[in-house]
Amino acid sequence: MIYSDVKYHEECGVFGIFDPSKKLNVTSATYSGLYALQHRGQQSCGIAVNNNGVIYTHNDEGLLSEAFNEMILNYLKGNVAIGHVRYASADNKGRENNLPYVSKYTKGQIAISYNGSLVNSQGLRETLERDGAMFHTTSDAEIFAYMIARERLKTTSTEQAILNIMGRVSGAYTLLVMTPNKLIAVRDPKGFRPLCLGSKGDAAVFASESCALDAMGAHFVRDVQPGEVVVVTKDGMESHLDKCGEETSMCIFEHIYFARPDSVLDGQSVHLARQNAGRCLARNDKEKVGDIVIGVPDSGLDAALGYAYESGIPYGIGLNKNRYVGRTFIQTQQDEREGLVRLKLNPLSSVLKGKRVIMVDDSIVRGTTSANLISLVRSAGAKEVHLRISSPPFLNPCYFGTDIDSRDKLIACRLSIEEIRKEIGADSLAYLRVEDLPEIVKDTDMKFCDACFTGKYPVHVPGEN
Amino acid sequence: MIYSDVKYHEECGVFGIFDPSKKLNVTSATYSGLYALQHRGQQSCGIAVNNNGVIYTHNDEGLLSEAFNEMILNYLKGNVAIGHVRYASADNKGRENNLPYVSKYTKGQIAISYNGSLVNSQGLRETLERDGAMFHTTSDAEIFAYMIARERLKTTSTEQAILNIMGRVSGAYTLLVMTPNKLIAVRDPKGFRPLCLGSKGDAAVFASESCALDAMGAHFVRDVQPGEVVVVTKDGMESHLDKCGEETSMCIFEHIYFARPDSVLDGQSVHLARQNAGRCLARNDKEKVGDIVIGVPDSGLDAALGYAYESGIPYGIGLNKNRYVGRTFIQTQQDEREGLVRLKLNPLSSVLKGKRVIMVDDSIVRGTTSANLISLVRSAGAKEVHLRISSPPFLNPCYFGTDIDSRDKLIACRLSIEEIRKEIGADSLAYLRVEDLPEIVKDTDMKFCDACFTGKYPVHVPGEN
Amino acid sequence: MIYSDVKYHEECGVFGIFDPSKKLNVTSATYSGLYALQHRGQQSCGIAVNNNGVIYTHNDEGLLSEAFNEMILNYLKGNVAIGHVRYASADNKGRENNLPYVSKYTKGQIAISYNGSLVNSQGLRETLERDGAMFHTTSDAEIFAYMIARERLKTTSTEQAILNIMGRVSGAYTLLVMTPNKLIAVRDPKGFRPLCLGSKGDAAVFASESCALDAMGAHFVRDVQPGEVVVVTKDGMESHLDKCGEETSMCIFEHIYFARPDSVLDGQSVHLARQNAGRCLARNDKEKVGDIVIGVPDSGLDAALGYAYESGIPYGIGLNKNRYVGRTFIQTQQDEREGLVRLKLNPLSSVLKGKRVIMVDDSIVRGTTSANLISLVRSAGAKEVHLRISSPPFLNPCYFGTDIDSRDKLIACRLSIEEIRKEIGADSLAYLRVEDLPEIVKDTDMKFCDACFTGKYPVHVPGEN
Amino acid sequence: MIYSDVKYHEECGVFGIFDPSKKLNVTSATYSGLYALQHRGQQSCGIAVNNNGVIYTHNDEGLLSEAFNEMILNYLKGNVAIGHVRYASADNKGRENNLPYVSKYTKGQIAISYNGSLVNSQGLRETLERDGAMFHTTSDAEIFAYMIARERLKTTSTEQAILNIMGRVSGAYTLLVMTPNKLIAVRDPKGFRPLCLGSKGDAAVFASESCALDAMGAHFVRDVQPGEVVVVTKDGMESHLDKCGEETSMCIFEHIYFARPDSVLDGQSVHLARQNAGRCLARNDKEKVGDIVIGVPDSGLDAALGYAYESGIPYGIGLNKNRYVGRTFIQTQQDEREGLVRLKLNPLSSVLKGKRVIMVDDSIVRGTTSANLISLVRSAGAKEVHLRISSPPFLNPCYFGTDIDSRDKLIACRLSIEEIRKEIGADSLAYLRVEDLPEIVKDTDMKFCDACFTGKYPVHVPGEN
Repeated sequence: MIYSDVKYHEECGVFGIFDPSKKLNVTSATYSGLYALQHRGQQSCGIAVNNNGVIYTHNDEGLLSEAFNEMILNYLKGNVAIGHVRYASADNKGRENNLPYVSKYTKGQIAISYNGSLVNSQGLRETLERDGAMFHTTSDAEIFAYMIARERLKTTSTEQAILNIMGRVSGAYTLLVMTPNKLIAVRDPKGFRPLCLGSKGDAAVFASESCALDAMGAHFVRDVQPGEVVVVTKDGMESHLDKCGEETSMCIFEHIYFARPDSVLDGQSVHLARQNAGRCLARNDKEKVGDIVIGVPDSGLDAALGYAYESGIPYGIGLNKNRYVGRTFIQTQQDEREGLVRLKLNPLSSVLKGKRVIMVDDSIVRGTTSANLISLVRSAGAKEVHLRISSPPFLNPCYFGTDIDSRDKLIACRLSIEEIRKEIGADSLAYLRVEDLPEIVKDTDMKFCDACFTGKYPVHVPGEN
Repeated sequence: MIYSDVKYHEECGVFGIFDPSKKLNVTSATYSGLYALQHRGQQSCGIAVNNNGVIYTHNDEGLLSEAFNEMILNYLKGNVAIGHVRYASADNKGRENNLPYVSKYTKGQIAISYNGSLVNSQGLRETLERDGAMFHTTSDAEIFAYMIARERLKTTSTEQAILNIMGRVSGAYTLLVMTPNKLIAVRDPKGFRPLCLGSKGDAAVFASESCALDAMGAHFVRDVQPGEVVVVTKDGMESHLDKCGEETSMCIFEHIYFARPDSVLDGQSVHLARQNAGRCLARNDKEKVGDIVIGVPDSGLDAALGYAYESGIPYGIGLNKNRYVGRTFIQTQQDEREGLVRLKLNPLSSVLKGKRVIMVDDSIVRGTTSANLISLVRSAGAKEVHLRISSPPFLNPCYFGTDIDSRDKLIACRLSIEEIRKEIGADSLAYLRVEDLPEIVKDTDMKFCDACFTGKYPVHVPGEN
Repeated sequence: MIYSDVKYHEECGVFGIFDPSKKLNVTSATYSGLYALQHRGQQSCGIAVNNNGVIYTHNDEGLLSEAFNEMILNYLKGNVAIGHVRYASADNKGRENNLPYVSKYTKGQIAISYNGSLVNSQGLRETLERDGAMFHTTSDAEIFAYMIARERLKTTSTEQAILNIMGRVSGAYTLLVMTPNKLIAVRDPKGFRPLCLGSKGDAAVFASESCALDAMGAHFVRDVQPGEVVVVTKDGMESHLDKCGEETSMCIFEHIYFARPDSVLDGQSVHLARQNAGRCLARNDKEKVGDIVIGVPDSGLDAALGYAYESGIPYGIGLNKNRYVGRTFIQTQQDEREGLVRLKLNPLSSVLKGKRVIMVDDSIVRGTTSANLISLVRSAGAKEVHLRISSPPFLNPCYFGTDIDSRDKLIACRLSIEEIRKEIGADSLAYLRVEDLPEIVKDTDMKFCDACFTGKYPVHVPGEN
Repeated sequence: MIYSDVKYHEECGVFGIFDPSKKLNVTSATYSGLYALQHRGQQSCGIAVNNNGVIYTHNDEGLLSEAFNEMILNYLKGNVAIGHVRYASADNKGRENNLPYVSKYTKGQIAISYNGSLVNSQGLRETLERDGAMFHTTSDAEIFAYMIARERLKTTSTEQAILNIMGRVSGAYTLLVMTPNKLIAVRDPKGFRPLCLGSKGDAAVFASESCALDAMGAHFVRDVQPGEVVVVTKDGMESHLDKCGEETSMCIFEHIYFARPDSVLDGQSVHLARQNAGRCLARNDKEKVGDIVIGVPDSGLDAALGYAYESGIPYGIGLNKNRYVGRTFIQTQQDEREGLVRLKLNPLSSVLKGKRVIMVDDSIVRGTTSANLISLVRSAGAKEVHLRISSPPFLNPCYFGTDIDSRDKLIACRLSIEEIRKEIGADSLAYLRVEDLPEIVKDTDMKFCDACFTGKYPVHVPGEN
């Protein structure tokens, strides 16, 4: 049995660059950008490059370090590129689903990187198939490709074709579309997934998160607006705002867990959002019972620091993460579950011994990992363990590109908070309150989707509302 | 060009287990133990298992996750095992140098895991060769094998042979020796490298660091004493203390950089040692000039926390480490050096902007990484950057199993502290003082080797003293 | 530089099986069948299996032994399968062109294995694209998929859709089409490429050559007729002959070089066809000047035997083929061309010394290999070397699925036979005459395409006729 | 299950080159030479190169095409090289047993390629171990290394050391010994295994078979004599004949099966030896009952041709060998044994139908392959199948470097010829007679070891004589 993590997964990261001056190595830039977005998808990755109107592509299973080598990078030459990192869920594992999606229609080649999930994909597929389309993948990117291709036959430009179809697709979609002479960035009108714009020299750069701009040395320019379509050609950049103006519903869980803490999304620092969540948790605790605040690495550390700042209780490093975990670990039957957690996270008794420990984590998935962690912290000598969760309880599935799915797997649907506390063996347990959510993202004007906590879906979801 | 780190390297980690009850999967236990010791060596690894008197072995290049798979682990059966992780320096790259070293002599098979470096290896080799020995590796382990084999012909037991030769070898050596019916643990009389003893069920376990015991679920029993020879057979454990009692000289850099912070070595928590170093740095700073204290991940974090505790200046998370770095990254010529640092460590401007930043790192190697880091932190908006180093300046090569080598590569041999400060662009720079070293390891009675800082070598080193 | 052969290449082999009784392992059967067809394509291979209406597929670069392993074969379960081996030419190298081609349209999934080449593919693509099709490959199989899918919307069955489109496609095509409940075999009305039908238990089996039936233990039933469409469902087999009856033009080069000698194609044994070619060559030689007849392994051996039979001159084994060649060989610059030939084929001086040697080969490509061979045979002591070629000179490109392409690469377009003889250094040189071709395939009623020799293309080829 | 052949195996091939002029690429030459010797060992291979006195080496599992790549070949630079291909039996599978064996002693480095098997290795090992030797492999090469190293301490040269120890080792040994300034070739006094000398430019070349000289473009000079020690230095070549003159006992099975037919060993063409065996078989057949003579590819073809020549019955190609077999084939449980044989060898009914077939093979191993072949040939329509074996029945194990081992696996030890005939289902069966053996190798003066047929071992074998 191969050990793998039981966390929720983001389903994609996208990156694109158009260098009119042909001075940069756009493949190398895309590789660096995707390296910084690796946390958004580890199962496969790909890069497509436009070399004087001809699109070359490579994608493969695994991390960037596994899927690419020097020879492949050297082979991919050009001055426009898009890239993709992917988390593959059970239904879309096949290699054919690796992105960027590349195909050819009467106006030439088209390549698409995509992050999101459409709620009406089934109907769109059926309509297209009835009109003679053949599907080679289960990716929504192929739906977009067909819709754009067909609309394009009736319009004068690819961007116009995109604007025309935006009314017919529903859900989360961030797209980078590369044609022989354009790079087009699209963010859905709800702004579910992040997308930002940067520049390096003369080149325009797009990325799911600002950390990717940092990684490849671009300067952050601005976020792409929800509903915006940005077109880059050799002659410059053009923005289409026709579809902007809807009430937005950006994914709040990007701030809580998915995004990298050093990213700034729509003006909100992810690190500060998490600190804010920690501060809220501290404010909600009437009695400050702890001697030390520790975070569960890596995603709980920022919130723990916020809790410490707000409460005045010292911040400590109580769990050491083995930095080689995440790579394959071969588990034998003899190993108990707790052993696996300990292999990844080891408690420091010099820090924890005799202490009342406040431990901050970002979420509770099935509960077993939390139970194991609490047991580990106690075994290291902690007198009490108070678990604080920097998000509200998950009560509803997500339909917008993450794998928080069926209700029967969500512990908070089955048990009350007190019951969860007992099951995981904490001395106390508190979650972030839904009403605290606006507080944590106070530096942005965006409205957020919190349907996983509240059940209030921002668009019609068949079977939900 | 492949990116690789320019830090100092530990040259080995060892692990061993003897399970008389034959209830445990010793191969799996060794694999888990080595997984926790991976930071001590990433170039190759190996496991040798004793199956009813016959020793089977596997070793290969790369990390454990690359060198082993399920089939190999299943193939290695038995009830005694030793393992090894290795950092390969330029002179000992060949596959034949992978450990455990396994060979056969008139008394049967022998397998050796080894951590250290002998200062008189050249002379020992020549003596052995003149007596008909043939060398297949450049590892000191083979010297030990020949010396043990030859001494064994004149003595009644392997442990007696080991005790007899200990007077003839000089330097750092931690050995795990496996014969058809014994597992023998040896720590040199100076105690240069750590070695601890644990238990799991009926099994005796040895590991370079206590974190490996934690990882495979063993209980820490005690440290092996400098000079001690511990023999485990199916009938129990026996300790030989004949060679104990010398003044010890454990490597101080194990605490400063090499060891994992969750390990406790000879009674001293590594995390607390680093915290103590940070506290000393704070105490040495007359004026407390900073608004925030940040650590350079991962090894600077503990000292930064100590600095924050002592100074009262808030601790912050100012640099985000890409957790996928460490894996292969393909660098193109276009990438500048700073870009590479940024790919690994990205500054958080939401934390650093407008601040006077105290940044704590464990050491300065060539100076270029520090310069790049300071430049990054400034680019994120820091008003001032004050670098604090949690170790004294390196002035002398190490001959005891690390790769701190020639003086011409050590920046502190060339430049004064003020010159270094200018070269790296810090607003201020301070190192830990040599006289602070005892303070950081105050929880142990061990005496330490600090020759890399002081030039006071605890044993005679040809050409040095 | 990697050594590779400079022979003409067949571009595909196909295999299919439908087992209504679900007793056979159809994946394993397809693997064995493809193993026997490996000579028809070595660059990539694939298998698609229908498991209760859902089609699973795997394809990869390389030989079957490289592209498949036990895990993959076990994963591909079902009771209907099609497979493919592919030779990739310069324009269709990409992985997306690996077959079987699999996609989905409104009537469900469709998988296609294909051998051939359409002469009107460019026009068909353009027509389809103008109607909203998107192309993901450069394979004609995708053209067929779209045409079938669109025609299917207007007809009652897939086979009827296929029959309807057969009038619109022109060129060579042998198809195996797998839908959720059918396996359909199609051979173009000209019968360019071979296809035969076999049975194993209750299962129907289709293969490019009869040797594949032998390899997986099926019995040969009959050849699929040119123009025939055979439909297999769980209820039995049905043959559609609507498109049969055109004058056929099977590829004569299948018998001369491409097919395996143990195959029987449309009633003609390939081995005997080659023997017949050798016999014709002998009959055409007025003077029988040789002491021994040798063949160039492997494809020249059968014709050499025929020459020996007819002439009465003894057959000998004069060249030994290194059976490990064909695998990668790494060539350094120092190696001369002749050395490479010698590495593959070594002359036996014990056989050749002092002899007047008649050497039979299947064709002359660029002339350099022939020159090297003659020089080798002379160096082994042959007194004279008389080269006999078991095919007429190539004068025209092939448009039907082989890579005999541009005239400027064909030595016979540049030089007369006497000039070629001089260039390669033979004592005499004779080719098979075009008028001998019917004689070599006298056991079949099929008419043949010999356009590569005569320029008489059996269908209209744009730019040729 | 992975398919593998059930033939007897040669255990090694050696190659060496010394180029004083430094003009040749000796690594490339060794690679080509080993490529031609691949049939002598497929499990692992290696090359060691002397670069100005320092020996670099690479070896790995698998064929040359798998174990080496361009980067490795480029890395191995120098002007002297030795190489090795190895067949690994059950007891010596480990990677440590790959050759060339390389180690270091007081006089410097030493590398050894070895073909053979010592009958007194157990005693030699014990003696060496009692004197402090440690063994890392189970290869006899390590015994030679220790013996040479120790003897060298008492003598003035490596060649003298070798000559001194030759009286103490017994069995088959062909050695190539490379030291920092010499290449020494050794053939045991009995001449069990072949070794020849060639030249290319100024370079001296040694190889197990002459086909390796051909492959890398060297000229054959002469065979190394049994007992001869040839020393090559930059100043020239020197031959030591002190140990020559014993009655030789070259392995007769080299001619019957192991060697390549295009090799000439000690003056005897292997191809002609096999032809001679076929001629003997024909002469022994009183009645010539066949219509056609076919050989079992590849090793039975030469003898079949000899039978045809002698008998006047036409030679035919009755079995087609799949040239991709030999590579991995994944067998599922469903496949019957016969199917596997058919996958490799397919009968041509156009040749066999209605015929009385004389089928010639080199040996019968377990009998099952022969039974399957006869059944296949009958299924292709043969009226009668008469099996002729071009060697006498195996009755005794081999102790000299092949894997013809225990008597209980030899069918001829259990059954009479008539019983074997029945078991395999032949219409008639005849073996070569022991008294015919001298006839087949009549072109050489060497005496041969035929102990596997006669039990007359040429040296004392513990437990046998």
